[in-house]
Amino acid sequence: MDEITSLTASEASLLLAAGKLSAERLVAACLERIAAREPMVGAWAYLEPDRALASARALDRMPRRGPLHGIPIGIKDIIDTADLPTAYGSTLYRGHRPAWDAACVAALRAAGAVIIGKTVTSEFAAYHPGRTRNPHDPSRTTGISSMGSAAAVADFMVPLALGSQTGASIIRPAAFCGAIGYKPSFGRFSRAGMRPFADSLDTLGYITRSIDDARLLGAVLSGEPDFGQARLDHAPRLGLCRTHAWDRAERIIQENLEHASAMATAADFMVSEIELPAPFADLNEAVVSIMCFEAARAFAFEYNENRSALGAATVRFLNRAAALPAERYWAAKSLIESCMPQLAAVFETVDALITPSAECEPGPLDDPGGDSVFNRLWTGLHVPCVTLPLAAGPGGLPIGLQLIGPYRRDTHLLAVAEAVWDRIGPRSRSTDRGATSRGCA
Amino acid sequence: MDEITSLTASEASLLLAAGKLSAERLVAACLERIAAREPMVGAWAYLEPDRALASARALDRMPRRGPLHGIPIGIKDIIDTADLPTAYGSTLYRGHRPAWDAACVAALRAAGAVIIGKTVTSEFAAYHPGRTRNPHDPSRTTGISSMGSAAAVADFMVPLALGSQTGASIIRPAAFCGAIGYKPSFGRFSRAGMRPFADSLDTLGYITRSIDDARLLGAVLSGEPDFGQARLDHAPRLGLCRTHAWDRAERIIQENLEHASAMATAADFMVSEIELPAPFADLNEAVVSIMCFEAARAFAFEYNENRSALGAATVRFLNRAAALPAERYWAAKSLIESCMPQLAAVFETVDALITPSAECEPGPLDDPGGDSVFNRLWTGLHVPCVTLPLAAGPGGLPIGLQLIGPYRRDTHLLAVAEAVWDRIGPRSRSTDRGATSRGCA
Repeated sequence: MDEITSLTASEASLLLAAGKLSAERLVAACLERIAAREPMVGAWAYLEPDRALASARALDRMPRRGPLHGIPIGIKDIIDTADLPTAYGSTLYRGHRPAWDAACVAALRAAGAVIIGKTVTSEFAAYHPGRTRNPHDPSRTTGISSMGSAAAVADFMVPLALGSQTGASIIRPAAFCGAIGYKPSFGRFSRAGMRPFADSLDTLGYITRSIDDARLLGAVLSGEPDFGQARLDHAPRLGLCRTHAWDRAERIIQENLEHASAMATAADFMVSEIELPAPFADLNEAVVSIMCFEAARAFAFEYNENRSALGAATVRFLNRAAALPAERYWAAKSLIESCMPQLAAVFETVDALITPSAECEPGPLDDPGGDSVFNRLWTGLHVPCVTLPLAAGPGGLPIGLQLIGPYRRDTHLLAVAEAVWDRIGPRSRSTDRGATSRGCA
Repeated sequence: MDEITSLTASEASLLLAAGKLSAERLVAACLERIAAREPMVGAWAYLEPDRALASARALDRMPRRGPLHGIPIGIKDIIDTADLPTAYGSTLYRGHRPAWDAACVAALRAAGAVIIGKTVTSEFAAYHPGRTRNPHDPSRTTGISSMGSAAAVADFMVPLALGSQTGASIIRPAAFCGAIGYKPSFGRFSRAGMRPFADSLDTLGYITRSIDDARLLGAVLSGEPDFGQARLDHAPRLGLCRTHAWDRAERIIQENLEHASAMATAADFMVSEIELPAPFADLNEAVVSIMCFEAARAFAFEYNENRSALGAATVRFLNRAAALPAERYWAAKSLIESCMPQLAAVFETVDALITPSAECEPGPLDDPGGDSVFNRLWTGLHVPCVTLPLAAGPGGLPIGLQLIGPYRRDTHLLAVAEAVWDRIGPRSRSTDRGATSRGCA
């Protein structure tokens, strides 16, 4: 692998600003990596290498536009781009050209980023998966739905990629691919121009390989230059949170969380056990109800008029969605809203929760979805989530540690994540564990 | 005027279901009315009469598809339609054809509605106005932004039209045109496929000429057949709410509200005076901050790359929006969120607030926006709002009475609105008032 492609965006940006690296060279290195790896990984829905190189050369000739000047990035294919096709992962929209750039894409361009291409998503970011394979093992899934973005970043094709999460769609694939995934607080970044799936849940976020890059990209997307610049003034207080789904987690996942907790204690972090209040047990199902109800409406055109062009899993999901009674939806909304202040109270004693990023190691290709029981509740509660690639299973497949922060305290969560990253990772646990991966059964 | 065009959708629907009226005849009557009045009113951004008639004839030949079978409707031009152009009120998108129908349009089609055309909106539903004139006086504004929808319904061109509200965009034009405007609770109907302006505020709603029609259309858009079927089991308890903007209201507006209050008391409603808590005084400005911050991001593509194609008022707004500091945005969010439970407490003693729909009578054409001080706060607070055309000023221009209900109790608010409508309106006050309209200065 070209060492240029192993640079984080923050590292590359320093070299670019100092004139020690050109955007063209950086983009060319990424494109070479993609050319070599894409046949196996399948991370890209659309690529136009000549256009990306031309963009890079143009940026090399102009004054620095912003903090991402010359930095390559991948855009999940449910996000509109005016100059590249946007198919939402659906054969129905093959070759579709939106009339404008999504807000996030416009912000990236204004900051000087080079849009390398569109990354593979499951259809409409829902359940019918794309073709991406786990870069660590092509027989394994990346998880859905920001699968191309997670694989592309983890596999050093690009340092950054945009994703979105309605259930588990950033944290799960980032964890499965061994990257850093960040699902911000609901509403933190503009989602104008992102294909709606479930309006109460859809959240724009991204995949990186460093916390600094999560800060850098957050500053660009928010338009707030000091985004994420907060630092902790105390040892992080972590809440070990098994959640009500603990029994659904594979043994290696359980062990990994407990090991992370022990490592954190050894690193002089304060770690306490947090038991979520009883009503939280129903949150995952509530989020599914919300997803169904809102998706049934958001995809009514496709479902009513173009059903035969949709993927089988999309149709199954929309069949189920169409049958969801409105009372279930409104009850789910009420439950979530009543849990929000209870979660806020939990954060009076801890800075962040640590919890599994997924219930299992990456399973076989035909099981991309799993049950996302460690993700949906947080998405529903609108709180920020970060997954860090802190471990690996016996087969070398990544295992993530998920950190959950208080609503809208994204900056604070990134500071906690940095402390965790610095003190207890990265490392491999493939040699010191006895448990065997069962995959996602 | 053809008496067919004076039918409400609910009335026409009964006749259609009974075979006493054909969709073709109804649509043809609407098209004739449009042909006669459109040169003066200018309500339509796009019309395709032959297509509408063909749709109507096709519906006449098929079994009843749903509760709007054969009913004509206008769609605000910021809402995507797959078979009609959608220009968002902007010359930049003239002739743009979206690839799909918005969720609301798909729901309408599935219910058998006939999409007559797209109605005029201010550019992106923001400040650069469209060409619509007040049907009661062509020298007067309709207000922005759902101007074509309000004028088309008020002028009997169609019984129903979709609108959207981010500040005052449904209530103000509906009141100015003398129609019923309904801005639901935030999130009540899917806005997938509606051009985003400010994600925390954008709300899909509509204009009708009867409360029954507001119920009928709500059932279709929500997919909840019993939407709005609740009835009050007691005399409505109304809160006379002058708000902190009282001094900004013209004298005739103040008098109208007080007169409505007296009429309600005479009709044996319970009426009490409600003073909003002190922090509510800053809500209108907070909503403007949110609108600016989110719009600066949502329209970054247009602002960064196509500024010269935008209307002057859009550019002025986006210039201002670009300068808004992030702290102001987050402070505005916090203020609004802290006011929400305080407003909920107010509704423990009243069923609805009554308050002006606008601070003035419709002003001259070159002043469509006014300052919307009686609207923005409610949009920000996410509560449902209805305007009823209960009065007219000395020049015969309509004056609305606005009712505000508790968050998500839309059905309850419509029941209160029906009671008010039945007991204290419609009537004209043009002969019994001495105040002179000053227009929107």
